[in-house]
Amino acid sequence: MRKVSGKSELDDAAMPSLRDVIAARPHVYRHLKPTPLHPYPGLSELIGAKVWVKHENHQPVGAFKVRGGLNLVAQLSEKERAAGLYTASTGNHGQSIAYAARAHGVRATIAVPEGANPGKVAAMRGLGAEVAFHGPDFDSAREWVMGVAAAQGGCFVGPTEERLIHGVGTYALEIVEDLPEVDAIIVPVGAGSGVCATGIVAKTINPGIEVIGVQSAQAPAIQMSWASGKAVSADMNTVAEGLATRVPFENTQRIMRKYLDDFVLVEDAAIEDAILLLLEHTHNLAEGAGAAALAAAIKLKRRLAGKNVVLVMSGGNLSVDQLRRLLARSGTSARAS
Amino acid sequence: MRKVSGKSELDDAAMPSLRDVIAARPHVYRHLKPTPLHPYPGLSELIGAKVWVKHENHQPVGAFKVRGGLNLVAQLSEKERAAGLYTASTGNHGQSIAYAARAHGVRATIAVPEGANPGKVAAMRGLGAEVAFHGPDFDSAREWVMGVAAAQGGCFVGPTEERLIHGVGTYALEIVEDLPEVDAIIVPVGAGSGVCATGIVAKTINPGIEVIGVQSAQAPAIQMSWASGKAVSADMNTVAEGLATRVPFENTQRIMRKYLDDFVLVEDAAIEDAILLLLEHTHNLAEGAGAAALAAAIKLKRRLAGKNVVLVMSGGNLSVDQLRRLLARSGTSARAS
Repeated sequence: MRKVSGKSELDDAAMPSLRDVIAARPHVYRHLKPTPLHPYPGLSELIGAKVWVKHENHQPVGAFKVRGGLNLVAQLSEKERAAGLYTASTGNHGQSIAYAARAHGVRATIAVPEGANPGKVAAMRGLGAEVAFHGPDFDSAREWVMGVAAAQGGCFVGPTEERLIHGVGTYALEIVEDLPEVDAIIVPVGAGSGVCATGIVAKTINPGIEVIGVQSAQAPAIQMSWASGKAVSADMNTVAEGLATRVPFENTQRIMRKYLDDFVLVEDAAIEDAILLLLEHTHNLAEGAGAAALAAAIKLKRRLAGKNVVLVMSGGNLSVDQLRRLLARSGTSARAS
Repeated sequence: MRKVSGKSELDDAAMPSLRDVIAARPHVYRHLKPTPLHPYPGLSELIGAKVWVKHENHQPVGAFKVRGGLNLVAQLSEKERAAGLYTASTGNHGQSIAYAARAHGVRATIAVPEGANPGKVAAMRGLGAEVAFHGPDFDSAREWVMGVAAAQGGCFVGPTEERLIHGVGTYALEIVEDLPEVDAIIVPVGAGSGVCATGIVAKTINPGIEVIGVQSAQAPAIQMSWASGKAVSADMNTVAEGLATRVPFENTQRIMRKYLDDFVLVEDAAIEDAILLLLEHTHNLAEGAGAAALAAAIKLKRRLAGKNVVLVMSGGNLSVDQLRRLLARSGTSARAS
């Protein structure tokens, strides 16, 4: 098995840079349009700051990750293209790799655990990927597909491969270009590619921009690792699939330690409230991860007062059943919009 | 009172043209990004055609109309700018004018009937417009504000002003540029600016593209007028605000008669089903008008078989309460996505 990214040991010089993000742009914009950064007066009033939302939920697979997938697949060698891509995912990463592989005519095999969300499996298959069910959980699916990739000479793509980070950084560059006066950017953290890319881009252009990560208190492994400076694993019970990581990744931890100003935890209940607030004020459907930045902004309200704040709506892949349950629970307490 | 558009009698030569739409582009793109045109495998399977959605719900005010507002306001004279804009609206048109007026530093006064949707009123005020409640219904609010505009020497902006149509046409041009092989475009019809602009652009570039309008069977005045060739008024009981017109407009009728291949009616119940299907397959929130094109495609399934079909999702401003009611009614019958 070959790793798509050649660098397994990241020294400081090898960290992804703004230059890598700029180089990713042609690969990304060959297939995608820049996403909007919209101001929302209702959210601004709620937070007591000037609030913009970066709409990565508007991407073709409903999440920011597709930028990374497109950058990675565009740079494969002929041999790598021929061998095909292998990855494991139960969510947006798998859809992103499937989308990018199809766009470039490359075969993608995605391992998912038995019992994976049928909607997401259907979406990956709809994009032409081969989906293989294996094992009871994500880790066993991942180990199995890494073995298959090794046996076939194919590329296994992990969720924090550097070329994914380079591609993802294009959304951060759009933020800084569209709103040079941004004071703070709040980014949901799963494996960390989004927040790392945002830190690299924002801090290189203007070290005064605060970059703040957010994870669910019901899945705090990455935050605890960042805060303690050492790899910590933790329980993972969050409803937000995009924030559900049990163990940290070495490369994204190093980047986060260098670039993040803060990293907060929010309760799942606050994330669910934020999904409803975003529906009301923006008429956009956010998945849990996509609403976490608003939950964090509400928590950090005093500190953000009067500032220009960008919330990254990282994805919108909430199921109709999840939405129905949330709305039924909120009953008549939510206001009409 | 001066009309913003000088032409009240439209002869054929005076009809808006592709050239007008191209001229509108710099005014529109100074403030907005092109919206995405995404393919959706799930919808394609449902219709038995290749289905794309044009995401005008991604616009800053959640609807296509903002393109027209920006084009109109950009071309006001100094005198017109100083006198300010006056319009009547209970929905997206008002938000569009408010947005465009603010972007250009012009004052906007928007008349709404007493009892207007508080969420939409708040949105207009959040955009800096002065909102005046007047009278029991839309027509009395409109008559009142036309009087105010006349007294103040300000510009009254009707919903089918030509410069609005020119600006709106930029989305149709994006469709034809992004998907030159499009066979049919289905467009929801309120006053008709969207479908007229689409007809002008699509037919001028490729007369083979079918342009199909759709209105609710619970508010069929525009469709009946088109079909009969004379102005017909009709009952208006639709749940879809964006489709709710009681009487036709002379200028858009003339354009529709020239450019539309077909104009279908769909039941409100089919529109509500389409809102849920769009949530499931696209994770986007559509308002009733924004879902009408999908309802029409389902109705026209046999005719569209195998074709490249674009559904215009004209707007996404559904309230949380409307959504909650729809989801509660659909109960457990809808599948998870």
